[in-house]
Amino acid sequence: MENFTTKASAQPLKNADELIDSVETFIFDCDGVIWKGDKLIDGVPQTLDMLRSRGKRLVFVTNNSTKSRKQYGKKFETLGLDVSEEEIFASSFAAAAYLKSIDFPKDKKVYVVGEDGILKELELAGFQYLGGPDDGGKKIELKPGFLMEHDKDVGAVVVGFDRYLNYYKVQYGTLCIRENPGCLFIATNRDAVTHLTDAQEWAGGGSMVGAFIGSTQREPLVVGKPSTFMMDYLANKFGILKSQICMVGDRLDTDILFGQNGGCKTLLVLSGVTSLSMLQSPSNSIQPDFYTNKISDFLSLKAAAV
Amino acid sequence: MENFTTKASAQPLKNADELIDSVETFIFDCDGVIWKGDKLIDGVPQTLDMLRSRGKRLVFVTNNSTKSRKQYGKKFETLGLDVSEEEIFASSFAAAAYLKSIDFPKDKKVYVVGEDGILKELELAGFQYLGGPDDGGKKIELKPGFLMEHDKDVGAVVVGFDRYLNYYKVQYGTLCIRENPGCLFIATNRDAVTHLTDAQEWAGGGSMVGAFIGSTQREPLVVGKPSTFMMDYLANKFGILKSQICMVGDRLDTDILFGQNGGCKTLLVLSGVTSLSMLQSPSNSIQPDFYTNKISDFLSLKAAAV
Repeated sequence: MENFTTKASAQPLKNADELIDSVETFIFDCDGVIWKGDKLIDGVPQTLDMLRSRGKRLVFVTNNSTKSRKQYGKKFETLGLDVSEEEIFASSFAAAAYLKSIDFPKDKKVYVVGEDGILKELELAGFQYLGGPDDGGKKIELKPGFLMEHDKDVGAVVVGFDRYLNYYKVQYGTLCIRENPGCLFIATNRDAVTHLTDAQEWAGGGSMVGAFIGSTQREPLVVGKPSTFMMDYLANKFGILKSQICMVGDRLDTDILFGQNGGCKTLLVLSGVTSLSMLQSPSNSIQPDFYTNKISDFLSLKAAAV
Repeated sequence: MENFTTKASAQPLKNADELIDSVETFIFDCDGVIWKGDKLIDGVPQTLDMLRSRGKRLVFVTNNSTKSRKQYGKKFETLGLDVSEEEIFASSFAAAAYLKSIDFPKDKKVYVVGEDGILKELELAGFQYLGGPDDGGKKIELKPGFLMEHDKDVGAVVVGFDRYLNYYKVQYGTLCIRENPGCLFIATNRDAVTHLTDAQEWAGGGSMVGAFIGSTQREPLVVGKPSTFMMDYLANKFGILKSQICMVGDRLDTDILFGQNGGCKTLLVLSGVTSLSMLQSPSNSIQPDFYTNKISDFLSLKAAAV
């Protein structure tokens, strides 16, 4: 994670037009910005339509690694949103994109601690993999002298959120990281919390990653927010300047930090986990450029400004 | 973990008599010092007999939390060693002793992520507990709106090595730590490696603890080595000065650091995981007072000195 200098206090968004005109691309976090759990947030379709009609590029970024881009696209479809697969950047995709970016050898394998999305993206990218859901039911039989064999061709361990984490996976991935020379330790994200259901906060991908930090005493390379990998990837892919991007999110320590680490403009929406009092608390050191209640404020603040 | 100042390079033990005369108590780590896996290290029974005959107090300390003192005592018995339960300090016992030391309320409960040893010690100490092996087969059913209930009376979560770690336990313990006011987060140890079998290194208690650090973003209170809790407890219980203790172990970052943090004399034995070249490597900053091949060198070095 890069350092950032403490910025001036966030300003309430007053003139949306000015912000919209000043950037080329909007990157949206999904949960808490576009939807909450299974419910679309008010005014989102109209807001996205307006931005598209003004020629803005829209990108949807999520640290969720359990689904592939394609699977995630279905969620947009179900909610009646017209978003294409290519506009979606999930951390499952980021893991595969990272391996591509470093020319990870096709004769090496990836051991996956995580759910289906990571496997699907690795497959699309043409990488060999093992682990994932297949290892969810595996147990270790502890006879004296028992040794767990592991594949010496594993050159990367990708750890993401995994409801089926078990000791077999911890030991297998740990052996690969510790014993295979040069083996990479990649985390899709280190989020403490995730939203399996909207009824409570659930332990997030940070807990699976933490297990491997504890056993390998190594730090992972993070490809999801707030690391800048996805931002760099987007900027390269679309040939855009980061100062021409506005990152919109509901979390200070992932979304806003991600935008700031990448050198983008940042807008916090209060439709998710962060309240105005949390933003303005003296203990919070992360200040976005602007904040507003929800993204559909773009519509009313635009009208007001005219 | 306390800081320690870099000490002068370790000296080979030349005069065991002098060391033995200078201390009242020997604290031995077990694996790599007393036994390796299921095999007793040469000369151990004779060495312990000699020390007892010279009036030395012997204490056996282990970060293993899967067994209680009583269960651990059986391992000594099986190997033909005459060691009493009261001489054994396992981190399972340390967790219960810690709760006693802070007068943890008897109407509060302890949620256990770990194996049988912790439960047994909590029971002996008169504490209420839940979790442990009972939660090993539990799964989370992810219906929309599903909420995991947790016991609001849980006032401490104890995390130790657990072959049956699963997401249910991670979420349950995380809810207790995050949502029950004042709930303690106690780790029996943070060892990266443990010795389930002697055929390879196995991911240790550090991986279970790491999972909870990742989801709670809190640091645990560690009761096992290298934290000084057990040393303080021993010094209090037996009324001994720490300078009158020699800590004997095979690991620099747990055993020797434990001894140094506690202000004791330290002796590294090379019969476990640490080799002479590791000790003398420039990257190693932990220097015991003395080192020797194995504890039975006490016998020969004694003879030589006479």
